[in-house]
Amino acid sequence: MRDIEQVKTYFQSLQKRVCQAFEEREPIKKFSSEENKSETGGIGKPKVIDDGVHVERGAVQYTYSKGTKLPAAATERNESLAGRSFEAVSISMIMHPRNPFVPTFHANLRFFLVDNGHWHFGGGFDLTPFYPFAEDVLHWHTTAKSACDAHDTGLYERFKKNCDDYFYLPHRKEHRGVGGIFFDDWSEGGFVKSFDLTKSIGDAILPAYLPIFDRRAKLNYTDRERDFQLYRRGRYVEFNLAIDRGTKYGLQSGRRIESVLASMPPLAKWTYNWTPEPRSPESDLYENYLQSRDWISELKKVL
Amino acid sequence: MRDIEQVKTYFQSLQKRVCQAFEEREPIKKFSSEENKSETGGIGKPKVIDDGVHVERGAVQYTYSKGTKLPAAATERNESLAGRSFEAVSISMIMHPRNPFVPTFHANLRFFLVDNGHWHFGGGFDLTPFYPFAEDVLHWHTTAKSACDAHDTGLYERFKKNCDDYFYLPHRKEHRGVGGIFFDDWSEGGFVKSFDLTKSIGDAILPAYLPIFDRRAKLNYTDRERDFQLYRRGRYVEFNLAIDRGTKYGLQSGRRIESVLASMPPLAKWTYNWTPEPRSPESDLYENYLQSRDWISELKKVL
Repeated sequence: MRDIEQVKTYFQSLQKRVCQAFEEREPIKKFSSEENKSETGGIGKPKVIDDGVHVERGAVQYTYSKGTKLPAAATERNESLAGRSFEAVSISMIMHPRNPFVPTFHANLRFFLVDNGHWHFGGGFDLTPFYPFAEDVLHWHTTAKSACDAHDTGLYERFKKNCDDYFYLPHRKEHRGVGGIFFDDWSEGGFVKSFDLTKSIGDAILPAYLPIFDRRAKLNYTDRERDFQLYRRGRYVEFNLAIDRGTKYGLQSGRRIESVLASMPPLAKWTYNWTPEPRSPESDLYENYLQSRDWISELKKVL
Repeated sequence: MRDIEQVKTYFQSLQKRVCQAFEEREPIKKFSSEENKSETGGIGKPKVIDDGVHVERGAVQYTYSKGTKLPAAATERNESLAGRSFEAVSISMIMHPRNPFVPTFHANLRFFLVDNGHWHFGGGFDLTPFYPFAEDVLHWHTTAKSACDAHDTGLYERFKKNCDDYFYLPHRKEHRGVGGIFFDDWSEGGFVKSFDLTKSIGDAILPAYLPIFDRRAKLNYTDRERDFQLYRRGRYVEFNLAIDRGTKYGLQSGRRIESVLASMPPLAKWTYNWTPEPRSPESDLYENYLQSRDWISELKKVL
């Protein structure tokens, strides 16, 4: 089918662009370059930087998979698809910056094609700051909204809500970060329109993140900020291993484990019963940012 | 019911003994002392040391819980109990030593009492070395076997197998450590005999671990060993968050989250696609210890 070939081409070119952007910012380290072929005809191209000057870990992974039996975790919301043969193509990425003033970011895009003719797109991006700056959060959400508005003015609100609902740690009663946009099971308006929307969102990833990265990556920080970053990364681990559907799918499906867990932070900390001091920069994160807020209208008022 | 009162008394005295043993070994830090009461009449007494000289994190928790609806995760193997009212009393403990030559250890004991008269004991202990010593592993398993043999000579093999089967990371195809013993749903021979067995195993925890701790806690180590320890602790996190039934139960049941996750290591590391060098001390762990082996007979031959 030609459609999936177009998606593969776009996802691979996006992988290249994203890796280039971060390699331009890293003085020495380059992304690893591997290719893993599965017995069923799938292919994985994980590209990973470990221990960079600015990117403590970055993973940008392209995956094409093909299977005779769609795993349950991939179809929780559409049980009629479980067990069918399928093709899937995806790009997923995560940056764990070294500097605690730079937020962690995560994005993915995916296309599913099932043997009965069902197909859908999904994906989006979300931001997890440690020491948030209001202007960064406004920029992130404004860029996300623009990518959606080009297609339909109602989409941003829907996709932002999906993101807030999904990136939530019920056992902590905490949002993972300041959110972003996510869509799933998407086929509205047919293949061309859905793919256009997916490309708009994919094309917005670097414009949403790089200005924030560039503004914060060289700020000075001390052990206090580093400590808090490591502590907050513990939440990222909790989310990925105990909650995230993509990771569960990866662990169930027997995919290459180093690819599935390339999203793990390089170093993370748990401190028993820790809470931030009142009126500290750390409590600012909890009180004002780990919330579901109407960022654009609220932050425009104060900035 | 008098029976559960005896169990409570024993578990609380064991908590006290374990905390005393480690406080005697820590020059400054003491275990925290809290008491959390639940609305349903439950009580939690977590005792935690963070950032000690030898114990980088240690948690010894006594919990009595009472509920009107047994969560699914607590009864995976006995579905007729789900949804019933219950009482449960447990002690669980974990030590994350600072020195990479000292293994991490975990133990728990529990007693469940369900409204229809069903009751059972469960628990055991397992060891997770980073740089294993054959004599330590032999001592650990010999002590475990003695605790079982006092009741029935067939128990150790059964309980060791339970432990090997349970503390396994399917996504890594790796055992968590060198195992130990675990039993569950235990009521063989009635309450008195089952409680006696539980006490034998509880009483063996310190004799199994302390000699190992004392032999290794003051060995010199370098960044290489510390790094490997942090890396291997990542597996502990993966097991606890993605696999462990107790943690799932804790996350589902809305228990105090800091108690549920007191088992997390203080610091853990993930390095993309790392494998130990052939014939290194690190590869020795993988090749000779993260296995299901007949430790006692095999190690007796070489020691």
